[in-house]
Amino acid sequence: MSKDKQFVFGHQNPDTDAIASAISYSYLENKRGENTEAVALGKPNDETQFALDYFGVKAPRVIKSALPEVNKVMLVDHNESQQSVSDIDKVTVTHVVDHHRVNFSKPQPMYYTAKPWGCCCSIIKSLFDKYGVEVPKKIAGMMMSAIISDTLLLKSPTTTPFDKKIIKDLAKIAGVDDIHAYGIKELKAGTNVDDKDAKTLIDTDAKSYTLGGKSIRIAQINVVDLNDITKRKAEVKQAMADENKSEGYDLFLGMVTDVLNSDSDLIAVGDPKLAVEQAFNGKLDADGMMKAPGVVSRKKQVVPPLTKALGKK
Amino acid sequence: MSKDKQFVFGHQNPDTDAIASAISYSYLENKRGENTEAVALGKPNDETQFALDYFGVKAPRVIKSALPEVNKVMLVDHNESQQSVSDIDKVTVTHVVDHHRVNFSKPQPMYYTAKPWGCCCSIIKSLFDKYGVEVPKKIAGMMMSAIISDTLLLKSPTTTPFDKKIIKDLAKIAGVDDIHAYGIKELKAGTNVDDKDAKTLIDTDAKSYTLGGKSIRIAQINVVDLNDITKRKAEVKQAMADENKSEGYDLFLGMVTDVLNSDSDLIAVGDPKLAVEQAFNGKLDADGMMKAPGVVSRKKQVVPPLTKALGKK
Ligand SMILES: [Mn+2]
Ligand SMILES: [Mn+2]
Repeated sequence: MSKDKQFVFGHQNPDTDAIASAISYSYLENKRGENTEAVALGKPNDETQFALDYFGVKAPRVIKSALPEVNKVMLVDHNESQQSVSDIDKVTVTHVVDHHRVNFSKPQPMYYTAKPWGCCCSIIKSLFDKYGVEVPKKIAGMMMSAIISDTLLLKSPTTTPFDKKIIKDLAKIAGVDDIHAYGIKELKAGTNVDDKDAKTLIDTDAKSYTLGGKSIRIAQINVVDLNDITKRKAEVKQAMADENKSEGYDLFLGMVTDVLNSDSDLIAVGDPKLAVEQAFNGKLDADGMMKAPGVVSRKKQVVPPLTKALGKK
Repeated sequence: MSKDKQFVFGHQNPDTDAIASAISYSYLENKRGENTEAVALGKPNDETQFALDYFGVKAPRVIKSALPEVNKVMLVDHNESQQSVSDIDKVTVTHVVDHHRVNFSKPQPMYYTAKPWGCCCSIIKSLFDKYGVEVPKKIAGMMMSAIISDTLLLKSPTTTPFDKKIIKDLAKIAGVDDIHAYGIKELKAGTNVDDKDAKTLIDTDAKSYTLGGKSIRIAQINVVDLNDITKRKAEVKQAMADENKSEGYDLFLGMVTDVLNSDSDLIAVGDPKLAVEQAFNGKLDADGMMKAPGVVSRKKQVVPPLTKALGKK
């Protein structure tokens, strides 16, 4: 009698960590006797597709809801309902493995493993080690790609000594000799903005939060030249305003991140703009834009100061 | 330069697990290089005091707030703000180790370790093993006592194979040959109800929840004879009604648990009573009381069905 099937998935608008965490954690749980399938809440972005192609891994199939296929799920690389599957409130969560702030409520005790590390795949690698399960070569490549993505090649302030150690272990298993050379290729694959419309740019890596009672959308757009977006600012701002209206966001904040130099431009559409200025200690220009030197992490450098500025306890 | 001091504590109205988890986890984190002090949010109950005396351990000092002594804290055996220190919203939580439902929100990523096991001390023992730290004899005795308390001598449905294995390891370290004989003594030490007034009885092991928008207080009173409370029902119900009024609870639910036979009587004061009847599939009598055969766990057998009956998503 096999166990009930469970889905394992990362957040909406999946990034490389969301996809690689689902693939690797599903593999680990299956080795430990569970019956899981890695799925995704969206198609891979260009960067993730590059990694999937490079290591010869198939993208997980995209689901819209957990029911009726499964009643139980495992969440990786996220925990907040707003970032999860549409029917998260109707299913049982048996496991969470995550590296984001905890904002979670479910009536049943379950397994929850969070560490303030740079990448969820680093935590999952530590679980492979804990349970004595070997990481297959292709999966190690995906996990390494996730660490590169989440830490911008170990340069983000979210990077910990654990990520730095674990990426080396994974590169060795994956047969990648030069992490930096591979990483630049991977990150560049995710910065092709010229042939995408503004709506796609602001949707691809975006997360929703409720902070201080306000509905906030925060998108990150990776580029190798900040001007690629500055020159299209009218179009991008219009797309943000349209989403604020259609989705009911109070504030849309765009982070345009130079992945090679680790700097961002911020674009704010909606209110309260004052909270953005307080959070980043600067002034938005007439276009609602400001420089945010050194800011590359939504989780560590954007959500906490914005939470504070919005006066949430 | 030593690290900033952190407090480690369990929930309000501490039980043996709350106290033993704070003592043991503080010891472990200090061995790992942190600077922590185990404290408590209340005095030990009779059962816990029995275990402290038996193993020669000093009760942690009682704090009312974390500030101004410390800015950072580690939570054990709880995670919900309502059950935590009064100024939990003003301090940083760096670690949570817990075995209850997760209902937690903090702006910063941190270490969160939860498992659906019978006792928080079982999880903490697994962390001692993970980090290769030996459990001192006296602390092992307290941790064993916590497993006995939380699982009612391994008879509660919350008990897992992990608890059963770990309690044996701890008893060996603690030098306790007969877990059952010790356990009966420990549990009986916590069932002395005759010389306590009704307010003390309903306050000693009580937790607050917000379920389906209602403020619910759930108290557990351990006895060796259910009639010890039945004969005092008028007095106990009056104390519950008084607290509903003074604290603003919608519903006060008392579980009177026969620790030797693993059954409970329920006493409900306030509203909605219908939810209690739906949750436990029975009828409250004219005194607001009903039998709940086999029900001994607030966490596993009371909170989830009540949550469902109150229509919380
Ligand atoms: Mn991630
Ligand atoms: Mn406990």
